[in-house]
Amino acid sequence: MKETLIKNVGKNVKPRKPVLVVGLPGIGLVGKLAVEHMVKELKAERIAELYSPHFPHQVIMRKKGTLRMLRNRFYYWKNPKKGESDIIFLVGDVQALTSEAQHEVCGKILDYFIKMRGKRIYTLGGYGVGKMVESPKVFGSATSKELVREMSKKGILFGKANGSIIGAAGLLLGLGHLRGMEGLCIMGETHGGYVDAKCAQSVLKVLSSVVGIKVDLAKLEQRAKESERFMKKMEKEAGKQKELQGMPESGLSYIR
Amino acid sequence: MKETLIKNVGKNVKPRKPVLVVGLPGIGLVGKLAVEHMVKELKAERIAELYSPHFPHQVIMRKKGTLRMLRNRFYYWKNPKKGESDIIFLVGDVQALTSEAQHEVCGKILDYFIKMRGKRIYTLGGYGVGKMVESPKVFGSATSKELVREMSKKGILFGKANGSIIGAAGLLLGLGHLRGMEGLCIMGETHGGYVDAKCAQSVLKVLSSVVGIKVDLAKLEQRAKESERFMKKMEKEAGKQKELQGMPESGLSYIR
Amino acid sequence: MKETLIKNVGKNVKPRKPVLVVGLPGIGLVGKLAVEHMVKELKAERIAELYSPHFPHQVIMRKKGTLRMLRNRFYYWKNPKKGESDIIFLVGDVQALTSEAQHEVCGKILDYFIKMRGKRIYTLGGYGVGKMVESPKVFGSATSKELVREMSKKGILFGKANGSIIGAAGLLLGLGHLRGMEGLCIMGETHGGYVDAKCAQSVLKVLSSVVGIKVDLAKLEQRAKESERFMKKMEKEAGKQKELQGMPESGLSYIR
Amino acid sequence: MKETLIKNVGKNVKPRKPVLVVGLPGIGLVGKLAVEHMVKELKAERIAELYSPHFPHQVIMRKKGTLRMLRNRFYYWKNPKKGESDIIFLVGDVQALTSEAQHEVCGKILDYFIKMRGKRIYTLGGYGVGKMVESPKVFGSATSKELVREMSKKGILFGKANGSIIGAAGLLLGLGHLRGMEGLCIMGETHGGYVDAKCAQSVLKVLSSVVGIKVDLAKLEQRAKESERFMKKMEKEAGKQKELQGMPESGLSYIR
Repeated sequence: MKETLIKNVGKNVKPRKPVLVVGLPGIGLVGKLAVEHMVKELKAERIAELYSPHFPHQVIMRKKGTLRMLRNRFYYWKNPKKGESDIIFLVGDVQALTSEAQHEVCGKILDYFIKMRGKRIYTLGGYGVGKMVESPKVFGSATSKELVREMSKKGILFGKANGSIIGAAGLLLGLGHLRGMEGLCIMGETHGGYVDAKCAQSVLKVLSSVVGIKVDLAKLEQRAKESERFMKKMEKEAGKQKELQGMPESGLSYIR
Repeated sequence: MKETLIKNVGKNVKPRKPVLVVGLPGIGLVGKLAVEHMVKELKAERIAELYSPHFPHQVIMRKKGTLRMLRNRFYYWKNPKKGESDIIFLVGDVQALTSEAQHEVCGKILDYFIKMRGKRIYTLGGYGVGKMVESPKVFGSATSKELVREMSKKGILFGKANGSIIGAAGLLLGLGHLRGMEGLCIMGETHGGYVDAKCAQSVLKVLSSVVGIKVDLAKLEQRAKESERFMKKMEKEAGKQKELQGMPESGLSYIR
Repeated sequence: MKETLIKNVGKNVKPRKPVLVVGLPGIGLVGKLAVEHMVKELKAERIAELYSPHFPHQVIMRKKGTLRMLRNRFYYWKNPKKGESDIIFLVGDVQALTSEAQHEVCGKILDYFIKMRGKRIYTLGGYGVGKMVESPKVFGSATSKELVREMSKKGILFGKANGSIIGAAGLLLGLGHLRGMEGLCIMGETHGGYVDAKCAQSVLKVLSSVVGIKVDLAKLEQRAKESERFMKKMEKEAGKQKELQGMPESGLSYIR
Repeated sequence: MKETLIKNVGKNVKPRKPVLVVGLPGIGLVGKLAVEHMVKELKAERIAELYSPHFPHQVIMRKKGTLRMLRNRFYYWKNPKKGESDIIFLVGDVQALTSEAQHEVCGKILDYFIKMRGKRIYTLGGYGVGKMVESPKVFGSATSKELVREMSKKGILFGKANGSIIGAAGLLLGLGHLRGMEGLCIMGETHGGYVDAKCAQSVLKVLSSVVGIKVDLAKLEQRAKESERFMKKMEKEAGKQKELQGMPESGLSYIR
């Protein structure tokens, strides 16, 4: 595998005017928690899996003795309201780590979405402030002034977040814009040092308003804990194996 | 050489229903020791060599004054039992170090095995626990529930190992599965900080049962010591030369 | 996006005997400040934008709530003097970080300039001396002895700067020379540890003399402060987000 | 420039049965000093220059105010003895730094040499021992037993050096052997922490014997000093500029 691969699974779908909603791992796991919760509550349908040579070269052992590759997944939700946009969700274990890799993976995601005639992308994430936040604000940054105007009514603060958006949450919008799409990043204020279910709740409420879909938030906190446990286990194992690697640079280490 | 190269050596072979058994350097050298021992005991025949631009850019000086590149090697063992699977073994000095490189090398290995109409892969390795182990358990992780069921009878513990499998032992199975193959990783519990011949013995017994071949274990410990000596020498030299490199980042260091 | 992309914006232009003047971020921001100032004073016209997978994978949030990708920009200035060279300016947020990336980006810039039948390149930058400089000298280094001779009359000191020129300011000239162009790097003596508007003024005066265009320097210092503020904010944010990333190497960090 | 480029300069040559003699920067600068000395003493003719995107992205400022790219160079020496081998020399500023880059550059060098119907390669280098050496031994490692036998008569010790040969001195031989060439690495025992002209003298004597050409050693020490000065200046500058770079990882550092 030399390039990122998106593999269709399940049945073929023909989304109407789809929007892409992205929640990949990032600061405070905010985007991932929020979007995964919505996927589950809406019982969205799995339609594709994304594998990449730019993801870490490891497979995950599952409880029942099987293993699987690291991946991102696309889900499809058919909007029951006539004329309204269907939704494509993108969630996953991991993002690529280097610039070149992020550009390659995001390019493939955009190819996939463009084939569906998608025009609009929402990415979710955390905005790290390095301190505890009582009631998290939700910031936004968009690809056009028109979208800023449109979204300012949804409880999103524009022009208040500083600096840059690192990773797919920003790059998908920037690259998408170059290819004629519009996009919005929805960021919840968060400490940054831990998994933040409360912040995920805040951005999820805003997302609900943006896409016009209500979701029950009852199970969000529980799911956040599961996610945290999964990610922590992964990290701990990765750390342990790394430590056991000994001399990673020698290329001849027998402890890998 | 811009891509990994697999070069046939020796005579052409036509394996019947081959399984691939992989023992590359990794935690405690467990997989490498076990598979190399089986290759020697079975007097398996060398059929191909693998060279890669992703392996370290160094050549090994041998005792008699000759040098050779770092490589992996394929061996072929013809199963004398009628109707049973022949075995292709893969062993070697080294694994690739980055994700992209691992994906490229594993892809070439799978191409090679698929050309032989191979369908099943066994990879062997160590499962580092960071402490001494009296009698090493043997864990397994497989690409399907059916294989888990089949292999549970062979003394392999499923669902007991946590986290992820890093490197070719995992990635060959994950990528192979994407291409229609089934696979099993057999991991022996080991400290992780040293070469573990006893653990190699444990996984070798399990492998024997899995492939239905008995091998004499008498020489395993001696071979483990040779392997350890070889790897240590390599590492020591690599370390020494690295140290002498001085400023590796300047690109103008005259100590390389 | 797998390769650097140069996208035309605005109207098509047909520069006469164009020279390329390059001011990308570098030591003391000297080149960037000087060239951006000239672009603004001359009201040069934006003609193209450069995006690269080798630039950091982040987008910049602007004050009004919109976002944009990191980029370089080309500007065009039509020389009102008959028979004189038009000027193409190149300025931007960032340079590529690795050798391979710099070669790719510089190659694309040269392709673009060669299509315009460009023959001569001036790059501007700082020459770090690690101490405060009262009245900064301006050093030069050129691709041919003829150019050294020609430029020695312009107040540029040749043969006084030592060592090497790192980044696009040097590589564009070296690669351009291989493709038949001539070039000159104009470097102002600067501390190196801070943004140096005074040094930018010195190199700008020399550039004015070299291209035969006078520019008002009144607003340079104020613009330098804005540039410094922008770059500092970017860095601070990048640093903060980096810090929040936690374990960047695990590939499974949930803090990205 | 996406690939390493070898550019012919000077007149076309048709070497007879050429051998390639390689002295690139490495431990103690031994190989570079020895081969550059021979090139100068023999007044070998420059025939080609090698540029690579894998070399550091910097240009060198020369004393007279001109600049040049980092490069390697090929020289040709016509053997006056009838029927004897002509020699192609390869010397240069720098080697590539990563495995993939070394494989690409060495591949291009071999392509170039194969076009000349070259069959044999000698590489020269230092063998670092980490301590002062009174009278440096000269070790060898070759691609075949036949060559070991042939060269044992020339005062080269085989089977005495341990470990691996890092960089082009080893890789050119390994990759060359895969493509049907034979090769020998001649290594002089050296401390490793400084430029070692005495060691260069020892390997040069051996090389003289190997290729059957006498060279005057009088100027070697003086040239070694010049080389050392050049490399040190480069390194110092590179270090200084690096230091001034500030935050090299942020990608937005304005101090480059």
